[in-house]
Amino acid sequence: MPRPEWLRQGRNPPFLSRLEPNGPSDRRNLMRAKPNDVDLRERAAKVIPNGMFGHEATHLLPASFPQFFSRAKGAYIWDVDGNRYLDFMCAYGPNLLGYGDELIDAAATRQLALGDTMTGPGPVLVDLCETLVDMISHADWVMVCKNGTDATTMALTAARAQTGKRRVLVAEGAYHGAAPWCTPMPGGIVPEERAFISKYKYNDVASLEAAVAAAGDDLAAIFASPFKHDAFEDQALPDPAYARRARELCDQTGAMLIVDDVRAGFRLVRDCSWELVGVRPDLSSWGKSFANGHPISALLGSNSCRAGAEAIYATGSFWFSAVPMAAAIETLRILRESDYLERTIRLGERLREGLAAAAARHGFSLRQTGPVQMPQILFNDDPDFRIGFAWAEAMLERGVYVHPWHNMFLNGAMSETDIDFAIEAADGAFAQVREHVGELEPHATLMSLLGAH
Amino acid sequence: MPRPEWLRQGRNPPFLSRLEPNGPSDRRNLMRAKPNDVDLRERAAKVIPNGMFGHEATHLLPASFPQFFSRAKGAYIWDVDGNRYLDFMCAYGPNLLGYGDELIDAAATRQLALGDTMTGPGPVLVDLCETLVDMISHADWVMVCKNGTDATTMALTAARAQTGKRRVLVAEGAYHGAAPWCTPMPGGIVPEERAFISKYKYNDVASLEAAVAAAGDDLAAIFASPFKHDAFEDQALPDPAYARRARELCDQTGAMLIVDDVRAGFRLVRDCSWELVGVRPDLSSWGKSFANGHPISALLGSNSCRAGAEAIYATGSFWFSAVPMAAAIETLRILRESDYLERTIRLGERLREGLAAAAARHGFSLRQTGPVQMPQILFNDDPDFRIGFAWAEAMLERGVYVHPWHNMFLNGAMSETDIDFAIEAADGAFAQVREHVGELEPHATLMSLLGAH
Repeated sequence: MPRPEWLRQGRNPPFLSRLEPNGPSDRRNLMRAKPNDVDLRERAAKVIPNGMFGHEATHLLPASFPQFFSRAKGAYIWDVDGNRYLDFMCAYGPNLLGYGDELIDAAATRQLALGDTMTGPGPVLVDLCETLVDMISHADWVMVCKNGTDATTMALTAARAQTGKRRVLVAEGAYHGAAPWCTPMPGGIVPEERAFISKYKYNDVASLEAAVAAAGDDLAAIFASPFKHDAFEDQALPDPAYARRARELCDQTGAMLIVDDVRAGFRLVRDCSWELVGVRPDLSSWGKSFANGHPISALLGSNSCRAGAEAIYATGSFWFSAVPMAAAIETLRILRESDYLERTIRLGERLREGLAAAAARHGFSLRQTGPVQMPQILFNDDPDFRIGFAWAEAMLERGVYVHPWHNMFLNGAMSETDIDFAIEAADGAFAQVREHVGELEPHATLMSLLGAH
Repeated sequence: MPRPEWLRQGRNPPFLSRLEPNGPSDRRNLMRAKPNDVDLRERAAKVIPNGMFGHEATHLLPASFPQFFSRAKGAYIWDVDGNRYLDFMCAYGPNLLGYGDELIDAAATRQLALGDTMTGPGPVLVDLCETLVDMISHADWVMVCKNGTDATTMALTAARAQTGKRRVLVAEGAYHGAAPWCTPMPGGIVPEERAFISKYKYNDVASLEAAVAAAGDDLAAIFASPFKHDAFEDQALPDPAYARRARELCDQTGAMLIVDDVRAGFRLVRDCSWELVGVRPDLSSWGKSFANGHPISALLGSNSCRAGAEAIYATGSFWFSAVPMAAAIETLRILRESDYLERTIRLGERLREGLAAAAARHGFSLRQTGPVQMPQILFNDDPDFRIGFAWAEAMLERGVYVHPWHNMFLNGAMSETDIDFAIEAADGAFAQVREHVGELEPHATLMSLLGAH
């Protein structure tokens, strides 16, 4: 499966289309089906660059995918035209235990009545940091922040401060945020801002060793995603030999090992994800889900990087706000005391088996990769994603929101009934795609991004 | 008034002290007065680098200042030992209309019941962007984000993408955030990350012209705070000739003019702050206060920088969360429909006059600078801040939280009674400081930062 040309070359994607991804006729269909969404898109096109931006923009999704949502509860989202979807994107990660969890939101609301953003933090800051240090084996300390990118950038900076070195290794294709040093689409970035960032191949010990050797005595850190969860590609679990070698190389050179658990944190294990391969980092970045959608992220560190953390300056207007901390404390309690993890794994296995069988019944072959509770679902013999896009559209029509090129997420509010609903929808969607497979065309904007232009 | 040596030299501050800023005897006093705060600090010292970090850390405040707060309402905060303070820091800006404003928090809570962080934005995103474009004269579009630093970094990147140029001018001493390109304390930052960032002197046309000339044909942007609100220094309103010249130089070179309104936004005018001097930027950065403490910031732009904004990639896990948007829409409605601004200006004038008179009665001379509703209060003949620190401690004892070296904020929940309470407290505090002025010593940690070490 080729990675997009622009991603491989570190180029910026071509200009994104606005309202009419597949031309006027699609748009007419869309207007019939989702008039409120179309109205909001037309208003948004005036006051938001490209009509929408960032990872939740739908420019690279099938044309029928709604951009705006009016409601979310449990495992479901409702678009602004009242259509309900079983949501396998989970807000791109934050929905870990179900949208609008009543215990978590009650904790948030109680704290809001006391105080949120104040002139200093509340006691919940200390409670939360102690809780995270208790739960995460490698961690001796915590710095809270707001974006995942804050947590990865602080990791970079703390590692450089700790070591006095500059070079930082990241895996090719890995996403570590949208700051100048790491954004995959470098529009407006000057190359100097990513000086001393080098690439290696994930799970490839020889490639990692070569990158470490090339860094000479200037190696500050090695970044690793807990598993390979890059867009447009099959996922891959970490090879324990690679993870162990990363640890050894850091120990030998004095560099910091950083696990970026922003996306996968608490979806694989109730600890840093690399506990599963027996490797402890010096730093780990967290975000998205540990307050179940309330805005907070964090850098966690071992004492091996405490002096570095104490030497950097990092802050933000809302980093010490108490409401998301109260939500996080309640979320973490539920994570410890419930079987959310075991259940989502069982449901993920049920989904994977059900989808494979349904696909086979209709003559399709899927590549379902990564942990079952964070599935990437791609089609064999679909180099330009046209089958995947058509299947995602057919799933959407049947009330299931799946993504054609980004990993998905299960959450703790899903049930066997939900999974069976998704499998039944998939059976119908595969049948529909099979019937029209000869007429499919690739998504125009995606094709321009994939380098077919 | 000298700026700290480490700030002028762009060095990192020395290692911050932890629990005992002024030695064991101070600590004993502190323990008697604020046992809960001391207990939390001791717990925090174990699980948070330096015991606390960022702009709300109290390492550079008098030893008696509490670190942790249990509650906030209206114009007041309560520390974890139950002491109440009239709060002139306003959470360093976010508290614009009063803590816990019931209308704003009700809007937030209503949205929370519908959905917050979802797989796409809610209609409130469009409502909010339209509202901001309506209110801010120069703005044609909006990109929401989470930190003020997000909004300034996106401004930098969008300006470079728009112009294809690299050089960016910022005023010496101005704070534009804590990212590698702008943090005032560059621990862990490599110089390359701030390549093409040059300095000029705020309000100094010749200095600005020289920096523009030095940029040659590589000028991407000029950053300007709406007024000079640097720490440790007197504030200064913008000289209209300087603001107009910045606009002319951008027009001549094609560079983008950026006003960083994160700190001052909506505290000077219900529009971009430079409307007061008749100058419209291409970009303005907003944050802190426009949702009255709910976490949201934004980059606003004119069509002159729309292509640049459309060419950058910027996103965050919680940028499209609906709750802070609902809070922002309600906050902005109140800003338009109430006299909060005129009232805070009247109260600011009352405070300034009252403090000047009280200081004079006790033989002190204050420099009260900047807009009355965002006062900086420094003492003449106090080069090492020892008088200012002692006065701030004496104010704190009397239930008024003032800052000895950072600008402060008034808010819309304050009343004449509150201001008179502060003036009365000040009278007593000046008297107390006068009595002990010969015994004062400078703050040890501050002195090491100010370069006296």
